[in-house]
Parts: sequence; structure tokens; C-alpha cells
Amino acid sequence: MRLYTRTGDKGQTALIGGKARKDDVRVEAYGSIDEINSFTGLAIAYLDPDVFEDIIQDLVKIQHELFDCGTELSNVSKKERPYELTEDIVTYLEERMDSLIEEAPELERFILPGGSQAASALHVARTVTRRAERQMVTLYHEAEEINPIPLKYINRLSDYFFAAARVVNARLEVADVEYERSARVFRGSHKKNK
Amino acid sequence: MRLYTRTGDKGQTALIGGKARKDDVRVEAYGSIDEINSFTGLAIAYLDPDVFEDIIQDLVKIQHELFDCGTELSNVSKKERPYELTEDIVTYLEERMDSLIEEAPELERFILPGGSQAASALHVARTVTRRAERQMVTLYHEAEEINPIPLKYINRLSDYFFAAARVVNARLEVADVEYERSARVFRGSHKKNK
Amino acid sequence: MRLYTRTGDKGQTALIGGKARKDDVRVEAYGSIDEINSFTGLAIAYLDPDVFEDIIQDLVKIQHELFDCGTELSNVSKKERPYELTEDIVTYLEERMDSLIEEAPELERFILPGGSQAASALHVARTVTRRAERQMVTLYHEAEEINPIPLKYINRLSDYFFAAARVVNARLEVADVEYERSARVFRGSHKKNK
Ligand code: B12
Ligand code: B12
Ligand code: B12
Ligand SMILES: C[C@H]1O[C@@H](n2cnc3c(N)ncnc32)[C@H](O)[C@@H]1O
Ligand SMILES: C[C@H]1O[C@@H](n2cnc3c(N)ncnc32)[C@H](O)[C@@H]1O
Ligand SMILES: C[C@H]1O[C@@H](n2cnc3c(N)ncnc32)[C@H](O)[C@@H]1O
Ligand SMILES: [Mg+2]
Ligand SMILES: [Mg+2]
Ligand SMILES: [Mg+2]
Repeated sequence: MRLYTRTGDKGQTALIGGKARKDDVRVEAYGSIDEINSFTGLAIAYLDPDVFEDIIQDLVKIQHELFDCGTELSNVSKKERPYELTEDIVTYLEERMDSLIEEAPELERFILPGGSQAASALHVARTVTRRAERQMVTLYHEAEEINPIPLKYINRLSDYFFAAARVVNARLEVADVEYERSARVFRGSHKKNK
Repeated sequence: MRLYTRTGDKGQTALIGGKARKDDVRVEAYGSIDEINSFTGLAIAYLDPDVFEDIIQDLVKIQHELFDCGTELSNVSKKERPYELTEDIVTYLEERMDSLIEEAPELERFILPGGSQAASALHVARTVTRRAERQMVTLYHEAEEINPIPLKYINRLSDYFFAAARVVNARLEVADVEYERSARVFRGSHKKNK
Repeated sequence: MRLYTRTGDKGQTALIGGKARKDDVRVEAYGSIDEINSFTGLAIAYLDPDVFEDIIQDLVKIQHELFDCGTELSNVSKKERPYELTEDIVTYLEERMDSLIEEAPELERFILPGGSQAASALHVARTVTRRAERQMVTLYHEAEEINPIPLKYINRLSDYFFAAARVVNARLEVADVEYERSARVFRGSHKKNK
């Protein structure tokens, strides 16, 4: 097998059912999803499977769903999709977050992104996800009729990474450090827990 | 507490005292500062506290100051700020650099970014900081009357990361590798040191 | 030596033979190449020299070539270059890939970017390289008469990182995980090998 095809050497590339310049906002969007995917892989590589089986499972599921979203965005064919991208990938993230949030210490103020190596990698994935989201917003405004699920999913995903980073530090007994000059920014936090 | 609010699912989001599209250059700017902050957290996670207490202290201070800069940029309210963002965060970085520069071997040519894992992470933080700076420059040109300190600070910060990466390698006795075809690019380097 | 010069505090900066705003697409392009270079350094820092001498050698060569490409792009002077940037840096990557591809297990479907820490870092470098490529494509469309080699080189480089990531996992006996819903996307793979 030869991996490289040399076809893109002048800046054009193939979509599913079309062609575009590599700096097209669509390519930017699914290229950034590929970047999130790689940082997710890096975060997994930092996690001890004995302690974080549940989170690793989430992250592998997420890697697949990032491919699903990427396929959706790289597809400009008008034909019906032979698969369905459904809301339940969003709902699943929400359920997981509700449960992870219970495990980490209560939160009122911003925390410094960091702590353990694994949590730091998750914070990096969180901010890369938010960067991808910004580019997707440009795509959704410029192009017509894009399935809304990938954008929702990516919005939820950065919150998931935040929740997961906190749990990782909690299990490793690394305390999250509060931003000293933070206002009380997280609402509803007084309503629950201890 | 519920972390996610679903309010941003269509691409709009809240500023301090306003609203904007997520792909607004302002959101891009403070979103990138959040990304620097996460890579700073990752760099800290690589540093041995026994050897790098001083640098870790710097980096935690920097994480707070990145939040300060982010607050400033996300605030579009015309009201007086109840806090002041002052030049001394810039001056402090300069003083630290002058001292760190003395500790690492003299430099005339470009070096390959890398060496130890910690220094490599600092070089990554350096280039992410420069990417954020580029987006801030766009914001400063488009928007009116933005406090100049965050931009100065971010300019100095990438130089700080460079100086810190060199000291980290020096203390770990990892030699920086020169770019073989480099001209003598660093000036004034003949004036001082051994 | 004083590292910082304060000259760029208002957003302008020096090119080779000129000046530009820091958010100029040209600065964006070679700034991103610097970012690839830093992630390459990080990947090297993860690789065990006893197992990956050949790949480390490649990566150090690549770090030099990234500087060569960066010099080319930051140079707006009309004068003849006293050096030549030649096609053989592209050819070399191709030859190395042909050989690396033979070493990793046969591939038909997309794989999840990840596995070992080193391979994950290479996947990150791969996607950062593709991001830099997208910005270079914008530069090549806007500016006149840019040497085509850096763009070709960066296109090939992301494929190189993919091939290298696979070999790293193979040598460490970490299996690449296939994307479960992937079509058979890699062509020609049936033609060769076992
Ligand atoms: C989209 C895409 C990507 C996306 C992939 C994923 C994503 N979902 O986000 C991204 C950007 C991540 C990517 C990355 C890479 N890619 Co790519 N990619 C493509 C592309 C454009 C489409 C591949 C695809 O999904 N096909 C699926 C569909 C279209 O195939 P199908 O058989 O018709 O569909 C089946 C199912 O998938 C499903 N289906 C799914 N969607 C749809 C939609 C419709 C309308 C229908 C009818 C059916 C359908 O139903 C079908 C029945 O089984 C192809 C080029 C092309 N146009 O084929 C290159 C291509 C496969 N990639 C290629 C390469 C080299 C890579 C990278 C190695 C590049 C790099 N250096 O990083 C990486 C590898 C990533 C990895 N982790 O393995 C090469 C492979 C060359 C080769 N030697 O064979 C190709 C051929 C491009 C090229 N250079 O010509 N890629
Ligand atoms: C700016 C911002 C950010 C910035 C933060 C920081 C920065 N400085 O760079 C960034 C982009 C990094 C960020 C990240 C996140 N954020 Co945020 N963020 C906000 C935002 C817009 C403002 C928060 C803030 O700083 N408030 C401070 C001020 C305005 O509060 P105050 O009480 O009025 O002011 C006091 C002081 O701060 C000070 N002050 C400071 N500045 C000013 C200015 C003026 C003019 C005045 C009068 C006073 C003042 O004086 C006051 C007296 O004590 C809010 C939404 C909103 N509009 O409130 C969301 C918000 C707090 N974020 C939210 C979330 C979820 C997050 C993330 C988890 C998202 C993610 N997935 O990454 C992360 C967490 C980051 C972390 N490390 O902890 C949610 C929280 C939801 C909840 N459950 O409560 C909010 C409410 C947004 C939402 N979804 O509705 N965020
Ligand atoms: C391009 C550039 C970069 C590029 C470098 C590389 C690349 N190739 O991608 C990038 C963006 C990576 C970079 C990074 C940094 N840089 Co820089 N960079 C420059 C710049 C604009 C040119 C340097 C250069 O390559 N000179 C080479 C040529 C022009 O020198 P020459 O002697 O004329 O040429 C010789 C050879 O190189 C060759 N040649 C090569 N090309 C050409 C072309 C022509 C037409 C000719 C005739 C000859 C020629 O032939 C000549 C004979 O030997 C200078 C500012 C300036 N205009 O000089 C700053 C400069 C050197 N950088 C500086 C700094 C601080 C940095 C960073 C520390 C910033 C940071 N915080 O990250 C890093 C360090 C990176 C590292 N790893 O070491 C400072 C140094 C300040 C000081 N104290 O001396 C400078 C002076 C900018 C400034 N602030 O004023 N930089
Ligand atoms: C928590 C805060 O982060 C900002 N915000 C929301 N989405 C993004 C994004 N994709 N990138 C950067 N910042 C974002 C908003 O200002 C929100 O209120
Ligand atoms: C050292 C060299 O790096 C370039 N430079 C200055 N600021 C940035 C930035 N934010 N991003 C990328 N490159 C930059 C200029 O060309 C400078 O001379
Ligand atoms: C493998 C697929 O990746 C896409 N592609 C090609 N080049 C880039 C790039 N620089 N960034 C993101 N995606 C790219 C094309 O759609 C190609 O077919
Ligand atoms: Mg959000
Ligand atoms: Mg600078
Ligand atoms: Mg390519």
C-alpha cells in the first residue's frame, strides 16, 4: 500500500461527494474534529486503566462519535445518509456528566486547568474542543442545512472534558486550585451535595 | 449542580455584559488564552517540584494572570472595572527572564524546540501563546479601546516560555540542539556571560 | 543578553526583508510551522532511543527542515536566496513512508488516533500539521510566487506522522483500534502484504 497520493499538493482535496480547497471552513471544521480526536487519544494514553476504566470507556466511545461527526461534516452529497446521527450521543454525555459532577468536590469558582498529567491533557482537549466549536459555528452559519447534532455534541463535549478532568484529579487526590480572583461563577452549586 | 446549560447549542454565547457569536474574534481571543492556560497546566504537570520550584511558582502566577487577561477581554461592559490590570505583570516576566537567561548556556542561533518532556511542553505552550497573540492582534485592530496590557503580556509570555524551556533543559542536563543552518540570529549575546 | 525587545507590543513584527502585522496570513503560516516543530519535539521526548533510533533520526531531520520551510515563508525579500530548498526533502519522506508502511499491520479502515503516549503525540503532530497546511494554502492563494516545496512537504509530513504513529504502536505491541463504522477507505491495501 502507498499511503500518500500527492493529489493534494496544490491545496485542493476530496470531500465525500465533492471537492474543496483545504482552507475551506468545512475542511477546517472536520480537521479540527480530527485534532480533538488526537488529543482524546493522548488523554487516554495518560489514564491508568485500573483506576479509570469508566472514563477510558467514555473516551473511546467519544473517539468513535468524533469520527461520526467528521463523516457528517465532510459529506456534501445530497443523497440520503445510510446511517443516522441521533440525539442520544448528546444525552449520553449529559448523563455521564451529571454522574461525574457528583464525584468531584463541589465547585463555585473557576479552577486553574491542570493538576495531574491526565487531567491536564483533558483540559487541553477541552480547549481544543472549544476551538473546533468556534470553527463549526462559522461553518453552520455559512453552509446550508447542516445536521445540528455535531454542533450540540461538541458543545457538550467540552463540558464533559471539564467534568472528567475534575474526577481524574479527585481520584488521584490532586486538589484543583481555585483561581484566586474568581467571582462565584458556577450557579446552582449551593443547591446540591454535602 | 448541572454543569451544562444547553444555551450555546446554536452558536451564541454570553460575554461579561453582552452576547456574541462563538466565532467572534473576541471569543476566539479569550478562548485561546484558555488554551494557553491548559498547556501551562500540562507543562507544570511535567515539572519535578524538587528541581523547579521557582518555575512552577512562576507558572501558577501566570495561570492566574491568564485568567485576569481573559476576564478583561471577555468584558464588554462600559462600566469601570472594580479591579486594575497593571503593567507590573509584564515587568515581573521581564525580570524573571533576565535572570533565567543567565542560567542557561549562551545562545546565538535558533535551537530545535524540544529536549526533555517538560521543556518540550513549554515550547508547545510558547507556540500556542504566539497563536493566541495573533488572534488578539486581530481583536485589538477591530475593537475599540482595549486595555493594552494583555497584548503586551502575551507577547512577553512567549519569550518567558522560551527562557524557561532552556533553563529546564539546562538543569536536567539535556543539551539544546542548534538548528544547523541557522544564522547568528540572537543579538547582544556576545556582550554578556562566559 | 536580553531576550525580549518589546518591539512587537503593538502587533507589528519583522519578517526577513520586511514587516507585517502579526495576524498576517504569512506570519500565521510560519508560526504554525513553529507549532508543528514544537509538537515534533514533544513526540521525540516520548520515544525510547533504544527502540526508535530510526524514527528519532527522521524527526530531528524534520525539525531542521521545518526551520528551512519557515525561513522560506518568512522571507519576502526579492533577492536570490543563498540556499536552495529542494524536492529531495519530499522524496525522502516518501521513501521512509514506503518502508514504515511495510512494518505496521495492513490497514483498510480508519483507526482511532492514539495507543501509546508516543503514537498519540505523533497523531497530535499529524493534525497540527494539517492545520498548518490549511493556513499555508491560504497564504499560497493570496501571495505571489511562493516556492511550492514547503506546501508539498507539509502535505507529505502529515502522512509521515500517520505512518510513524502506526509503527510506534506496532513496535510497542499496542494494537491500533479500528473505527467501527468505517468503510474500507484505504485503497490498494489489498494489493500488497500478507
Ligand atoms: C472524510 C475523510 C477523512 C476524515 C475521516 C473521518 C471523519 N469521519 O472525520 C479525516 C479528516 C479524519 C481523515 C483522515 C485521514 N485520511 Co482521509 N479521507 C476522507 C475521505 C474524504 C472520505 C472517507 C470516508 O469516510 N469514506 C466513507 C464513505 C464515503 O465511503 P462509502 O464506502 O461510500 O460509504 C460506506 C459507509 O461509510 C457508509 N456511509 C458513510 N457515509 C455515507 C454517506 C453517503 C451519502 C452514503 C451513500 C454512504 C455513507 O455507507 C457506505 C456503506 O458501507 C476520503 C476520500 C474519499 N473521497 O473517499 C479520504 C481518504 C480515505 N483519506 C486518506 C488518508 C491518507 C487519510 C489520513 C492518513 C491523512 C493524514 N495524514 O492524517 C488520515 C487517517 C485517519 C485515521 N485516523 O485513520 C486517503 C487514503 C489514501 C490511500 N492510500 O488509500 C483518502 C482516500 C484521501 C486521498 N488522499 O485520496 N480522512
Ligand atoms: C468569562 C467566562 C469564562 C472564561 C473565564 C475566564 C477568563 N477570565 O478568561 C473562560 C472562557 C476561560 C471560561 C471557561 C469556563 N466556563 Co465560563 N464563563 C465566563 C462568563 C462569560 C463570565 C464569568 C466571569 O468572569 N464572571 C465574573 C464577573 C462578571 O462576575 P461578577 O460577580 O459580576 O464580578 C465580580 C468579580 O469577578 C469582579 N469583576 C470582574 N470583572 C468585572 C467587571 C465589571 C464591569 C464589574 C462591575 C465587576 C467585575 O467584581 C465582582 C465582585 O466580586 C460566564 C457567563 C456570565 N456572563 O456570567 C461563564 C460561565 C461562568 N462559564 C461556564 C462554564 C460551564 C465554563 C467552563 C466549564 C466551560 C468549559 N467546558 O470549558 C469553563 C471552566 C473553566 C475553569 N477553568 O474553571 C458557565 C457555568 C454554568 C454553571 N453551571 O454554573 C457560565 C455561567 C456560562 C453559561 N454556560 O451560562 N468561562
Ligand atoms: C524568521 C524568524 C523566526 C522564525 C524562525 C525560523 C524559521 N525559519 O521558521 C520563528 C518564527 C520560528 C522564530 C522564532 C523565535 N524567534 Co525569531 N526571528 C525571525 C527573524 C524574522 C529572521 C531570522 C532569520 O532567519 N534570519 C536569517 C537571515 C535573515 O539572517 P542572515 O544573517 O541575513 O542570513 C544568513 C543565513 O541565514 C542565510 N539566509 C537565509 N535566508 C536568506 C535569505 C536571503 C535573501 C539572504 C540574502 C540570505 C539568507 O544566508 C545568510 C548568510 O549566513 C528575526 C528578525 C530579523 N528580521 O532578523 C527574528 C528574531 C531573530 N527572533 C527573535 C526571537 C526572540 C525568537 C523567539 C525566542 C521568539 C519566541 N518567544 O518564540 C523564537 C526562538 C525560536 C528557536 N527555536 O530558537 C528575536 C531575537 C532577539 C534577540 N534578543 O536577539 C529576533 C531578532 C526578532 C526580534 N524580536 O527583534 N523566529
Ligand atoms: C464559559 C464561557 O466561555 C465562552 N465560550 C463559550 N463557548 C466558547 C468556545 N467555543 N470557545 C471559547 N469560549 C467560549 C463564553 O463566554 C461562555 O460564557
Ligand atoms: C521571531 C519572529 O517571529 C515572528 N513573530 C512575532 N510574533 C509572532 C507570533 N505571534 N506568531 C508567529 N510569529 C511571530 C516575527 O517574524 C519575529 O521576528
Ligand atoms: C483524508 C481527507 O482529509 C481531508 N484533508 C486533506 N487535507 C487536509 C487538511 N490539511 N486538514 C484537514 N483535512 C484535510 C480531505 O477530505 C482528505 O480526503
Ligand atoms: Mg459550551
Ligand atoms: Mg514576541
Ligand atoms: Mg494530505
